[in-house]
Amino acid sequence: MTTRAEWVAVDWGTSNLRAWGIDASGNTVFTRSSPKGMGKLTREEFPGALTELLEGAETGSGAVDVLICGMAGARQGWLEAPYLDTPADLRGLFAGAVRPEMPGSRYLPAILPGVCQKTIGAENVMRGEETQLLGLHVLMPEFSGVVCMPGTHSKWAALEAARITRFATAMTGEMYEVLRTHSVLRHSLAGDLDGPGRAEGFDAGVDAGLARPDNLLGLLFSVRAGSLLSNRQPDWCAGYLSGLLIGCEIGAHRDWIGDAEVPLIGASALCALYVKALAKVGAKARLIDATEAVLAGLKAARQFAV
Amino acid sequence: MTTRAEWVAVDWGTSNLRAWGIDASGNTVFTRSSPKGMGKLTREEFPGALTELLEGAETGSGAVDVLICGMAGARQGWLEAPYLDTPADLRGLFAGAVRPEMPGSRYLPAILPGVCQKTIGAENVMRGEETQLLGLHVLMPEFSGVVCMPGTHSKWAALEAARITRFATAMTGEMYEVLRTHSVLRHSLAGDLDGPGRAEGFDAGVDAGLARPDNLLGLLFSVRAGSLLSNRQPDWCAGYLSGLLIGCEIGAHRDWIGDAEVPLIGASALCALYVKALAKVGAKARLIDATEAVLAGLKAARQFAV
Repeated sequence: MTTRAEWVAVDWGTSNLRAWGIDASGNTVFTRSSPKGMGKLTREEFPGALTELLEGAETGSGAVDVLICGMAGARQGWLEAPYLDTPADLRGLFAGAVRPEMPGSRYLPAILPGVCQKTIGAENVMRGEETQLLGLHVLMPEFSGVVCMPGTHSKWAALEAARITRFATAMTGEMYEVLRTHSVLRHSLAGDLDGPGRAEGFDAGVDAGLARPDNLLGLLFSVRAGSLLSNRQPDWCAGYLSGLLIGCEIGAHRDWIGDAEVPLIGASALCALYVKALAKVGAKARLIDATEAVLAGLKAARQFAV
Repeated sequence: MTTRAEWVAVDWGTSNLRAWGIDASGNTVFTRSSPKGMGKLTREEFPGALTELLEGAETGSGAVDVLICGMAGARQGWLEAPYLDTPADLRGLFAGAVRPEMPGSRYLPAILPGVCQKTIGAENVMRGEETQLLGLHVLMPEFSGVVCMPGTHSKWAALEAARITRFATAMTGEMYEVLRTHSVLRHSLAGDLDGPGRAEGFDAGVDAGLARPDNLLGLLFSVRAGSLLSNRQPDWCAGYLSGLLIGCEIGAHRDWIGDAEVPLIGASALCALYVKALAKVGAKARLIDATEAVLAGLKAARQFAV
């Protein structure tokens, strides 16, 4: 007997779209993904992208709830879902959802809100990470403390059980990409970036970033100077650049880190770099699978709604 | 009676090429410029670009010395001029010049070296600024102290009369351009960037950067969050971004700044921003015209050679 999905959980980010069909027992009965992220779609294209993604999926024949988190709820997305303000109780995510229309479709989409912080001078926004944080709360109900979410825009969030009390964003991943591609540093990073020098460069970069996080603009130029004067190769330079940025990010958040383990939610290869860098400031980290977290969060959002 | 140039002074940067014909009394008898900067030329195109620039110029009919500073001496330039290492006596620049060949031409080009700093972990390079610094020494012979040279890659140099003892580079100007053009911040900077909010944004940005230079990666994202949450307009965001970067740069160099006036060499509009930002840390600045400095430096390099 084939189990059918009772509802569909969706993570609709800037770059990708992923869906999981969930049955009445909470099991995943299908997984779908597509590169049709929010960044590639006009507002009118969202219903079609969702329909296409779910075509032929094993769902019931009637109306099907589709619960979405992420950038689909941004101003440039499908339908803007207003932010919850910090301190934000993540159990209230579903209550803040918006419902875009899909006339003639049996899908009933709802988009979860993001979370914002309106404090002047510490303004901040997240979309998608709040759902992962709700998932973390369900996976580790006893946890309160700081969570680090490495990525294009890394998030640091202070969690008190199901509440986000404050959070910060560091443009670490985007900075790496932008500098690698568009700055003078590209000359030093032209070649094989995954050679054996990468780990050594990363190590040196983290040390330099942690020692002088206030001097990032200066340290960055040392990537270029190091390749010109000390014959640093592209793999070393790539590791060094990555290490500088992560070292500066962690250096700026030292006062967030206490004695407790820091949960890391993100891509596993990237999180492994943060584990190494956090160890240098005496912090232990615990890896949380990002997909597991977002799926747990989408399920929890729905559960807390009833 | 028309005065003829005895020799030609050339500043050959990444983006532009400028030349001044200098007569026997040290007066400028012609000025030429072209967009044929080093970044746009292959090695083979340098002689032609120089000949084209000087076509019909009032020089003597015999051989003409052409003294060049800047990126023409880089590895990707016309002919690599090895760096002088710090501490570097700038009166020795001419002795380190290289002489590219121009067979059949009456021009005798010589390219001045740049200056490097080989200290591991503080590796650094400059090309062009060393000539401006020699010019500063000639213009202000009594001066010893810190000089700030705002630009794409801002330089901070400790000068003891004609000697550079150490220097640093901050990628401030390039970072502004790269973030404005290629990062998520471009959404917040799309529009009129020179509106009345720019000065206010700059002021707020400098304050934020000076307060937390270690948190640049976080502050940068606040440009985006500010436009989403607090309806900051593109002009304000542009000023804020510029202020953040300059504030972080100055914040990282606070221990370089003493009680003395800081000479600022660079584009006048940019230097005016640094004057404002430096005032916030109690530092006085003195504007030095960059063209005047480079020309004085090229003349001095030639004088110290004889």
